[in-house]
Amino acid sequence: MDNFDKIAVIGGGSWATAIVKMLCENNSTIGWYMRSIYAVEHIKRNKHNPNYLSSAELHPEQLDLSNDINEIVGKYDVLIFAVPSAFLNSELEKLNESLENKVIFSAIKGIVPETGLIVGEHFHQLYNISYENIGVIAGPCHAEEVAMERLSYLTIACQDEKKAKALSKKIKGRYIKTKVSDDIFGTEYSAMLKNIYAIAAGIAHGLGYGDNFQSVLMSNAIREMKRYIKKVHRMKRNINNSAYLGDLLVTGYSVFSRNRMFGNMIGKGYTVKSAMLEMNMVAEGYYATKSAYKINQENGAKTPIIDAVYEVLYEKKEAKDVFEKLTNMLD
Amino acid sequence: MDNFDKIAVIGGGSWATAIVKMLCENNSTIGWYMRSIYAVEHIKRNKHNPNYLSSAELHPEQLDLSNDINEIVGKYDVLIFAVPSAFLNSELEKLNESLENKVIFSAIKGIVPETGLIVGEHFHQLYNISYENIGVIAGPCHAEEVAMERLSYLTIACQDEKKAKALSKKIKGRYIKTKVSDDIFGTEYSAMLKNIYAIAAGIAHGLGYGDNFQSVLMSNAIREMKRYIKKVHRMKRNINNSAYLGDLLVTGYSVFSRNRMFGNMIGKGYTVKSAMLEMNMVAEGYYATKSAYKINQENGAKTPIIDAVYEVLYEKKEAKDVFEKLTNMLD
Repeated sequence: MDNFDKIAVIGGGSWATAIVKMLCENNSTIGWYMRSIYAVEHIKRNKHNPNYLSSAELHPEQLDLSNDINEIVGKYDVLIFAVPSAFLNSELEKLNESLENKVIFSAIKGIVPETGLIVGEHFHQLYNISYENIGVIAGPCHAEEVAMERLSYLTIACQDEKKAKALSKKIKGRYIKTKVSDDIFGTEYSAMLKNIYAIAAGIAHGLGYGDNFQSVLMSNAIREMKRYIKKVHRMKRNINNSAYLGDLLVTGYSVFSRNRMFGNMIGKGYTVKSAMLEMNMVAEGYYATKSAYKINQENGAKTPIIDAVYEVLYEKKEAKDVFEKLTNMLD
Repeated sequence: MDNFDKIAVIGGGSWATAIVKMLCENNSTIGWYMRSIYAVEHIKRNKHNPNYLSSAELHPEQLDLSNDINEIVGKYDVLIFAVPSAFLNSELEKLNESLENKVIFSAIKGIVPETGLIVGEHFHQLYNISYENIGVIAGPCHAEEVAMERLSYLTIACQDEKKAKALSKKIKGRYIKTKVSDDIFGTEYSAMLKNIYAIAAGIAHGLGYGDNFQSVLMSNAIREMKRYIKKVHRMKRNINNSAYLGDLLVTGYSVFSRNRMFGNMIGKGYTVKSAMLEMNMVAEGYYATKSAYKINQENGAKTPIIDAVYEVLYEKKEAKDVFEKLTNMLD
C-alpha cells in the first residue's frame, strides 16, 4: 500500500487539528474523525474547531468530516491517530472495520494506559499490524505554533522508508519542514519520556530550583533518555536530533506544557490528586511515568530522574526530599 | 604547585563576585583584584559590590582586596581570571609580577580579541604557561543565581586532574556542586561558542520564529558544537554533559543573556552598531563570532549557524534572508 492519496486523521484535539491544517496545504481531501458531532457541525459552518486550536482557519470544502470512526477508517488507507493516549483504547473498541492493509501513523505522545504499551506496539500486538505499516509523527512541535504558521520541523518515522517519505511529502510545506527516520521505537519512546522530564522540570521549578539547575536537569535528561531508549531498541541514532533532544527541549522549557504545570503544582505542595482536580485533566506524563518506570524495572537503565518522578507521583514521597536526593545523582 | 591555600580572583564583575562568594564558603582568605578603588572601598565598608551582583552579601574580613593587580598576583599561587575577555589583554599588560609557577584558571567565556585565542591558549602562547597549569571553570551558571544561593553545577577542568580536584574542593559547597574534567579546550571553546548560538537564538526570536524553531536551533547547535570542538581538539567527550549542553541551554534559553538580547535587537531590525550603542556594551558573542568563524575556515567543520551569525554581524547581510537560508540547512 503505497497510495498516500487517502489520508485521514483520527482525533479532534489541538494536535489533530494542527495535522489536518498541515495536510490541507498539499491534499485536496482529508478524512477527519472526531467524537463530537457538535464540533463536526461547527467546523463545517464556521471553519474553526470550537474546542481546540480555535485560531486555526480550516477549509471545510477539503474535509471529509465524520463522528463515525468506522466510516472514516473504512474509506481511508492511511490513518493518523492523534487522540490522547488515554482515549485510544476506547476509540479502537468502537471499530468494526478492519485495520488490515491500513498504514497507521501515531501522532500520540504517550503510553496506552490499558496495555502499558507505546502506540506502535499496541497496534502491532493487539491488531496484528506489521511494523512495516506503522509509523510515527514526532515533534518538536507545539500545535499552537502550527496554527500561527510558525516554522516547525517534524520527523516522520517508519521502518519502511518509502512510507515515511510518502507521508513526509504530504505534510511538508510553507511552514513545515520534515525529516525522515526509521526509528519508530526511539521517536515514540522519547516523545513519551519527555513528558516525564517536563514533570520533573515543573517539580524543580515549584520547589524553587532555578535556571542553572533546569539546564543541568535537561542535560542529564537527554543522557538518561539515550540510555533508556538504547535498552528498549538498540540501533544507531543521534539522540541530539530534533525528534529526541528538540522534542525534550520544546516541552521541558515550555511554560504552557501541561506536564510541566502539573509538576510545578506538585513542587509547590499540591497533592497529586488535588493537582489533577485543579487542572481538570490528567497530564499524559502521569501515566507515562508509571509505565516507563515498570518497563525499566526489567531493562535496568540508570534513570534517576524517572525514578524520582515515580517516587513523588506513585509512592507519595515528599518532592523536596526526593529532589534533594536526585541533585546528588546528577552532574 | 599543589598548594591551593592561596587563591585569588582577578576581576570585579558579576561572575568574579559570584566566584568570590563561593570560595568564601570554604576558605579563610581570598585575594581579590579589581580595577576600581571605589568598588574596593565600597565592599570593605558595605559588604556588597556596588556595581555587579550587588545583592550578594560579601565578607570583607575574608577578603584581601586590592586594585593593584601586581600585589595580588605576587601574593597568590592560584589565579582565577574572571574579567571580560575584551579587557584581559589590557589587564595583563599591567603585570610586572611573573606568572611562572602560578596555576591559572579561566572563568572567562570568550576569545581574547587581540589574539583571537581562547584564554587558555592565550596564557600558553604569550606567557609560556604549561597546559598542566591551566584550567577552566565552566558553567552552566548564571552569577545571579549564585547570589541567590540557588543550586548550581560547575565543571572544573585541568589536564592535571589533581589541580582540578583541588580547586573543585575549594569551590563546592551548600549550593555548588562540581564535576572534574580534563577537557580544557572543549569546555572553553564551548563556553565561547554558546554565546554565538545565543545570538542566533536572539536573532530568530527577533525575526518572529517561535519555540518550535528555537528547540530545533538548539538541537542543531549542540551537534554543530560537537563537530566544531572535535576539529579543535579531538578527544573522548560527551557533548551532552552539563559543561557543554547545559551551558548552551542556560544561555540560549535565557531572556537575560546579553548575547541573546543583542541578537534579538538585530532580528528586530537594529543595525549591529545601533544595537551595541543601545545596549551600551559589546556582547562577548560578537567577538566570538568572528574568531570562531576564522578558526573554522581552516578546520572546515560544518557550521551553518555560526556562518549565518557571521554573515549578519560582519557581512551586513539581511538577517531575514540569512535565516531563511539557514532554516533549510537545519533538521
